[in-house]
Amino acid sequence: MPTEFTHVRRVSFVETDMAGVVHFSNYFRMMEEVEHAFYRSLGLSVSMTHEAMEIGWPRVACACEFFGPLRFEDEVRLVLRVTKVGEKSFNYEVEFFRADLRVARGRLTSVCVALTEAGFQPIPIPAAIRAKLSAEP
Amino acid sequence: MPTEFTHVRRVSFVETDMAGVVHFSNYFRMMEEVEHAFYRSLGLSVSMTHEAMEIGWPRVACACEFFGPLRFEDEVRLVLRVTKVGEKSFNYEVEFFRADLRVARGRLTSVCVALTEAGFQPIPIPAAIRAKLSAEP
Amino acid sequence: MPTEFTHVRRVSFVETDMAGVVHFSNYFRMMEEVEHAFYRSLGLSVSMTHEAMEIGWPRVACACEFFGPLRFEDEVRLVLRVTKVGEKSFNYEVEFFRADLRVARGRLTSVCVALTEAGFQPIPIPAAIRAKLSAEP
Amino acid sequence: MPTEFTHVRRVSFVETDMAGVVHFSNYFRMMEEVEHAFYRSLGLSVSMTHEAMEIGWPRVACACEFFGPLRFEDEVRLVLRVTKVGEKSFNYEVEFFRADLRVARGRLTSVCVALTEAGFQPIPIPAAIRAKLSAEP
Repeated sequence: MPTEFTHVRRVSFVETDMAGVVHFSNYFRMMEEVEHAFYRSLGLSVSMTHEAMEIGWPRVACACEFFGPLRFEDEVRLVLRVTKVGEKSFNYEVEFFRADLRVARGRLTSVCVALTEAGFQPIPIPAAIRAKLSAEP
Repeated sequence: MPTEFTHVRRVSFVETDMAGVVHFSNYFRMMEEVEHAFYRSLGLSVSMTHEAMEIGWPRVACACEFFGPLRFEDEVRLVLRVTKVGEKSFNYEVEFFRADLRVARGRLTSVCVALTEAGFQPIPIPAAIRAKLSAEP
Repeated sequence: MPTEFTHVRRVSFVETDMAGVVHFSNYFRMMEEVEHAFYRSLGLSVSMTHEAMEIGWPRVACACEFFGPLRFEDEVRLVLRVTKVGEKSFNYEVEFFRADLRVARGRLTSVCVALTEAGFQPIPIPAAIRAKLSAEP
Repeated sequence: MPTEFTHVRRVSFVETDMAGVVHFSNYFRMMEEVEHAFYRSLGLSVSMTHEAMEIGWPRVACACEFFGPLRFEDEVRLVLRVTKVGEKSFNYEVEFFRADLRVARGRLTSVCVALTEAGFQPIPIPAAIRAKLSAEP
């Protein structure tokens, strides 16, 4: 059974556009919000240090399908599911629910890097972090 | 040869995040920016009226792959290519270039709707609009 | 004693910029967030109907002073204080606290309007709404 | 006669909200956009190095008055005027025009800092930068 994490939040006014619904780009911001809440629930942070290395998770690919709109003040339930913890990459999907209706589904792949003077250097996900990301809930 | 449209713009400060690079959600905003500039170049607007119907283009699906970062004040060349004009749907991809380096590629599918009292009603893309979207450049 | 309302929230990644701190424009979004939470606490919504009129609150003026930075994952306590309920205008200030440190103070004036075909028409704040906005806590 | 700088840009879709107009927080983003274009016009960048020090301009205070709405695809003329170059602080105002109508006026004060390990250290504005910021146009 995959690791799963749920986060509930309300749509704010600034997330809407003149069509009266949440702008599609904001679904990716919501995905990141649940991702970071998931890390915090594990005692991690997306901005973390491991053995004196600063670690980051730049995005490699992301996608979202939209099944229906979200509107101002809607309460959204975000369900994150870890789909793969690769050697260097981390994959999850997020389902978006308004009441019992699934309104969107997103996917994201990021890669573990050390933030060095020379830029982002991909590294194997440290074992301690890997263990947490892939633990049974 | 597919319809192609190029738009150049500069990365603004607010588009960056604490990692020092453009936040991944902003690539979708850039895709929309070139899409709307493309419509204007055809004498259209994303917010348009056709035979007294208000027409909109809600997003059905989108995706983006990231090959390298974009930073503050980078000049980005966005190349939009129409990939399919379906009966009711419109598909394009956008390639992002910094100088000659391709740093990202996005894809987007939207569907043509009439904005009615009852909500968004999918409709066949009106012939006059279809002709413009699929014209040879 | 003025009406006061407190809202706590965490800084998200996308709110930061390449300087590593929350972008100054986002303080106004936080002010709006606490404002709307305040309305909800009164059984109101910023998007409300009163006697078949749709009512809105366009902004007339706003300002913010910054005393120190906010960073990713900081927990921010936002304290809204109603400063004046005029005939047609509504004024509040928001103080931003990180732990016990006041890091910013914002002020906002909005005006009550009916959303009509002809645009935004300023109207006196309906008595029922006025009573709630200016009630002792 | 004060230093003045003009920048023209178009309102994008994502800048609007469900009220059909540009969200008030985005006026501050437009102010920053013209500010940075102004710096570039002087051969400066907001992200600059001076005598091996990295220099930044955190915001101390900002304000905006709104006289009328801006809508999707409006062409906005932003006129920046330097109002004061203090020992350590920089002050400007921006007027927003749609056609000949002034729709908003904003003001901003930032302070010159060196970005050091210990955080932001206010410093006198370096003479070479001061000369450019306060030059007659």
